[in-house]
Amino acid sequence: MENSGYVALTPETLPARLSVIDAISDRLGRDPDRWTVKEVGDGNLNLVFIVHSDMGSVIVKQALPYVRLVGESWPLPLYRAFYEYHALKRQAARDPGSVPHIYYFDNDQALIVMEFLSPHIILRSKLIAGEKVAGLGEFCGRHCARMAFRGSELSMKSADKKADVALFAGNVEIPAITEALVFTDPYFEAELNSHTAGLEPIISDLREDAELKGVVQSMLVKFASNTETMLHGDLHSGSIMATDTKIRVIDPEFVQYGPMSFDIGMLTANYLMAYLSQPAHRATDLAEYQAWILEVIEATIAAFGTEFRHLWATERTGMFYPKSMFEDQGHSSEPACDAFLSALWTDALRFCGIEMHRRCLSLAHNADFERIDNIALRASLEARNLSMGAHLILNADTVSDAAGLAALATEFNGRDFL
Amino acid sequence: MENSGYVALTPETLPARLSVIDAISDRLGRDPDRWTVKEVGDGNLNLVFIVHSDMGSVIVKQALPYVRLVGESWPLPLYRAFYEYHALKRQAARDPGSVPHIYYFDNDQALIVMEFLSPHIILRSKLIAGEKVAGLGEFCGRHCARMAFRGSELSMKSADKKADVALFAGNVEIPAITEALVFTDPYFEAELNSHTAGLEPIISDLREDAELKGVVQSMLVKFASNTETMLHGDLHSGSIMATDTKIRVIDPEFVQYGPMSFDIGMLTANYLMAYLSQPAHRATDLAEYQAWILEVIEATIAAFGTEFRHLWATERTGMFYPKSMFEDQGHSSEPACDAFLSALWTDALRFCGIEMHRRCLSLAHNADFERIDNIALRASLEARNLSMGAHLILNADTVSDAAGLAALATEFNGRDFL
Repeated sequence: MENSGYVALTPETLPARLSVIDAISDRLGRDPDRWTVKEVGDGNLNLVFIVHSDMGSVIVKQALPYVRLVGESWPLPLYRAFYEYHALKRQAARDPGSVPHIYYFDNDQALIVMEFLSPHIILRSKLIAGEKVAGLGEFCGRHCARMAFRGSELSMKSADKKADVALFAGNVEIPAITEALVFTDPYFEAELNSHTAGLEPIISDLREDAELKGVVQSMLVKFASNTETMLHGDLHSGSIMATDTKIRVIDPEFVQYGPMSFDIGMLTANYLMAYLSQPAHRATDLAEYQAWILEVIEATIAAFGTEFRHLWATERTGMFYPKSMFEDQGHSSEPACDAFLSALWTDALRFCGIEMHRRCLSLAHNADFERIDNIALRASLEARNLSMGAHLILNADTVSDAAGLAALATEFNGRDFL
Repeated sequence: MENSGYVALTPETLPARLSVIDAISDRLGRDPDRWTVKEVGDGNLNLVFIVHSDMGSVIVKQALPYVRLVGESWPLPLYRAFYEYHALKRQAARDPGSVPHIYYFDNDQALIVMEFLSPHIILRSKLIAGEKVAGLGEFCGRHCARMAFRGSELSMKSADKKADVALFAGNVEIPAITEALVFTDPYFEAELNSHTAGLEPIISDLREDAELKGVVQSMLVKFASNTETMLHGDLHSGSIMATDTKIRVIDPEFVQYGPMSFDIGMLTANYLMAYLSQPAHRATDLAEYQAWILEVIEATIAAFGTEFRHLWATERTGMFYPKSMFEDQGHSSEPACDAFLSALWTDALRFCGIEMHRRCLSLAHNADFERIDNIALRASLEARNLSMGAHLILNADTVSDAAGLAALATEFNGRDFL
């Protein structure tokens, strides 16, 4: 997977370079002079261009050979575009309509040309702005369940799944970012860490807690040594685009095989951070909007369970929990499904707590907190978030369901930790 | 990995075909007329030849394109020799002296020429014959700990380990045998199953126990979707050769990445089956020899723990449980190691119970029980074994240590289940 002849695009060079490609010029026309190009990459890793013409619009995403957020001092392989492309294909097959359509892929240029989603905006921006998205929880829960189930040997032929594990095992450097930034850096003085002034006592408590750090590392073992299903790998509210009624999942370049509990856990953490940061973003409708976020969390988890059970009953064609051992002998496999989901839920809460930590402590903080200019207020809200994260990591097995998680969020939202 | 020009060896063709290979003729001489060849493959899968000359001796192991135990109706890829070769190399590096030396490998002929171990015999034969092996538990426990630790990201560089996962993910058909014969077939009326007459009530109870079957399948998920370390994959007393004082591990063709608890769990099951079958094999020294087997079990588990903790303290150079999060902050990581080993132990006991079942219920029974001609006696001993297996599967978390396991074995050895 060498990338021969790679040259990063610029808004100036893009039209001439891409207008000769039929799959693109079919949508934008063959006259590059009539294309307008805007570089909008506000993420941490890539170039992203919106290209318009009077015929239509496309998104052009090109990997850079380094971490954009940090610079050329942190090189990062271009092959991530290859994995993103293969992840998008599988997501489209497993949950049709959940991800952008792909128009063109060029492996050498680490380039994916895809559907321009409009008027979608990043979910995180909507959550900060206090905007609701109808059906958000139902979509996200169902999507996570479909990806978890249909990418596993509950559904897939074992040989196909193992070949896929081998394919994605080549994506080493990208998971390494998660392994460091999420599971390790927050718990010691890592070079790229930063945090809001005032949080020092809480951070010190976290780093003093060897039991908590042990649990975090046991979850790193699960993240890095488990191949249950194909993960999105970075499913936060910045990886979801939405209108008030439509939702798509984007940016699966952190794809890897991993535990089924990971994506839903990370997503839940990002909902909770949206919830806990709200007191800084609104006043009059605060209680009502926070209640809506908790409803979204409960709806997400309910939809995950409902869809997972539905697929368990209707699409269990893989080698796990075969009908020959259960239904064919007159035994329900529903209790086994309950036990499976119960273990998944507990691990999801642990991943959730870990994500809540890293977004305030290591590199790549999230805008929910970062956009709070009042440092004291930000610290007090982040303190709630860090404390709730620690509680989840250490007590995941005591939170039996989504209602219990919502109650816990309400409790931490009402306490002061600084 | 196509095998071009593959032709199965015979005792007649072997000397002429292999005497032209320097690595072999250096050991046996270049005159094939002075070689004697004996086919000794008593396993389930391969051709195995002992080749002697007045200069020396070698073992020639060649894969067959089908399961030898079943016949050409069950094809099996020749690529397993490739994986066995790579497994042997890694075992030799991670636990020097624990496996036979390799003299020659021919991928196209699916052929490995290796050290002839003499006067070693298969450990299972010694256990049936009532022969002791000095240091058996210490060797096996240490070997399992070294393989578990040094093949994981506790020790290895993450990129190297992930490349290895991708390599071994190609070994699909061989793990599929384990997935079916060990985790699935025992629990329904699979075509290749067989069992000793008289066991029907116990088998019926097992298959009626949906909770037990659910736990078994949760362990299949762990076996097939976990890449903690490189496993032997088939570590029973037929995969160990021993003199009264020397021990080697052979036949890692079931190699795959999997949970650290698997090999030690399978091995423990095979010790326990040796223990429970003893009443049919000896009289006067029964109690004393059974006590020795329990000592071996306790020594194995003790040595595993001791070596694992030693490696944790001295070779923890991988990304898991980094010193930056523990020792560098003045925190011991020993409690984290304790928790890690405790979870490993519980899973090992579940794998142990499952192996105890399959060896009496599906294909590939073990000689410990099969060589008991008295069917009623065999059934009564196998009934103890099946019942103890079920107890371990369902109550693994109540067996806190090796002494507890030995006490449990003593208890089941004294009960009648038919």
